[in-house]
Amino acid sequence: MFKEHAIMNGKIVKVEDAVVNIAYREVQFSFSAYESISVVNGRAIFLEDHITRLFNSCVGIKLRHPFRRSEIKKSIIDLINVDKIDKATMRILIIGGNDAKLFITYTDKISYPDSYYQDGVLVTTYEGERLFPKFKTSNLLLSYIALEDARSRGAFEAILVNRDGYLLEGTRSNFYGFKNNKLYTAANEFVLEGITRTRILEASEQLGIEVVMRAPLLKEIREKKFDEVFISSTSMAAMPIKAIDDVGFDTNFSRTLSLMKIVREKEQFDS
Amino acid sequence: MFKEHAIMNGKIVKVEDAVVNIAYREVQFSFSAYESISVVNGRAIFLEDHITRLFNSCVGIKLRHPFRRSEIKKSIIDLINVDKIDKATMRILIIGGNDAKLFITYTDKISYPDSYYQDGVLVTTYEGERLFPKFKTSNLLLSYIALEDARSRGAFEAILVNRDGYLLEGTRSNFYGFKNNKLYTAANEFVLEGITRTRILEASEQLGIEVVMRAPLLKEIREKKFDEVFISSTSMAAMPIKAIDDVGFDTNFSRTLSLMKIVREKEQFDS
Repeated sequence: MFKEHAIMNGKIVKVEDAVVNIAYREVQFSFSAYESISVVNGRAIFLEDHITRLFNSCVGIKLRHPFRRSEIKKSIIDLINVDKIDKATMRILIIGGNDAKLFITYTDKISYPDSYYQDGVLVTTYEGERLFPKFKTSNLLLSYIALEDARSRGAFEAILVNRDGYLLEGTRSNFYGFKNNKLYTAANEFVLEGITRTRILEASEQLGIEVVMRAPLLKEIREKKFDEVFISSTSMAAMPIKAIDDVGFDTNFSRTLSLMKIVREKEQFDS
Repeated sequence: MFKEHAIMNGKIVKVEDAVVNIAYREVQFSFSAYESISVVNGRAIFLEDHITRLFNSCVGIKLRHPFRRSEIKKSIIDLINVDKIDKATMRILIIGGNDAKLFITYTDKISYPDSYYQDGVLVTTYEGERLFPKFKTSNLLLSYIALEDARSRGAFEAILVNRDGYLLEGTRSNFYGFKNNKLYTAANEFVLEGITRTRILEASEQLGIEVVMRAPLLKEIREKKFDEVFISSTSMAAMPIKAIDDVGFDTNFSRTLSLMKIVREKEQFDS
């Protein structure tokens, strides 16, 4: 894989030319929306869903742009073809303003060692609320700082805790917990409706797991009311959690891994 | 004035070359801090204070960078000299990451017609809280959207109202109100400590105005408990407010304009 090129406004450019001028007001104000997409076997997974969500995010923050679904799809295929991409994590970015801009770039596909799925990962909690949680915007400073904080403590992800003590979502993931064999996760209006989250909820239905659309409370975590917790994202599918801060979970993650397997199969089906 | 150049990491570059690559993670996450500075008669006003606050913002968000006060001051003088700048609004931006970057750019000096000061401006209110309010970061989506909302309703500025109903600050200004001849404004811990705000508070002391460090409540505004309100910023100094949403103020703005005059004199003294 060369990572030689990127897309700028529908045109293939050298990746070093995928630049924005910092005198541009919408760059200064982070007035932009984005999506992260997995490419597997040279195909962008769940692409229609990602473009739909990208456009929703733009509408949500009143970012007007001239880019069309068909154009974005063609650009992605162009980029995959020119760099002969097999696997990658791709990023579509729309920056607003009178002269709105579209960029598509990619990196090595983000993936995690098997040991993460066997042993679970450590996560921390961080007090903070995403602005416009339903939209995926570049207003990402909270996520950046919460994740840096997690990493500085040896953790894999930070879960954001809102003013009422609910664990709504991670900095780059959705969050779930099992309590009395029911799966708890935040109601749609409070979090980003993850593309993978939708698959997790479908998979839960397939497995006959009852879902309660209410986020776990930090208080409940500390009181050990939840016996298995996990996060989900495009690159993680379902990732089991070994401990939240200093609260460990004594489980073999069987329910999480069953969900993970089904989500991975759905990806195969789409690719 | 040519606006031909900018500074990038201490070097003078053509302004069209003041660019960042959008594949850079810290650009994607808006992990950066900035300052806006007035240049008058070829001199950057209150420059020491602005650099101090810029460095404070960087410390606040744990943005490590190699840039030194003396270097930034030299770069500003270089830029003023190369483009023979007399008046301008200048912007210093530090973007974080392993390869931290410093940019200095400028625009025509932001200034407002005399009629704004005579008649006052219309402002709207917008529910929302700045993340890390003590730091001036590029996490500006809330400010962008609140200001767009204000402009779409013919207003000059939006005042952000927090979860408890306090009018803390504008999207690019601090906010103040007179009640029983005392000047009310948010306590330092809840807002950006404006460079001009500090001058306003000093000027209030000079004029014998008692200051109460507590933000006006929206409820109090609606109940007409405040009889004169204004905003302040580097480019506005003190700007009188004609109306907040549909609540008008029947005043000749004499107190606001007295404060404005003193602040403008302080600027002259610094330039």
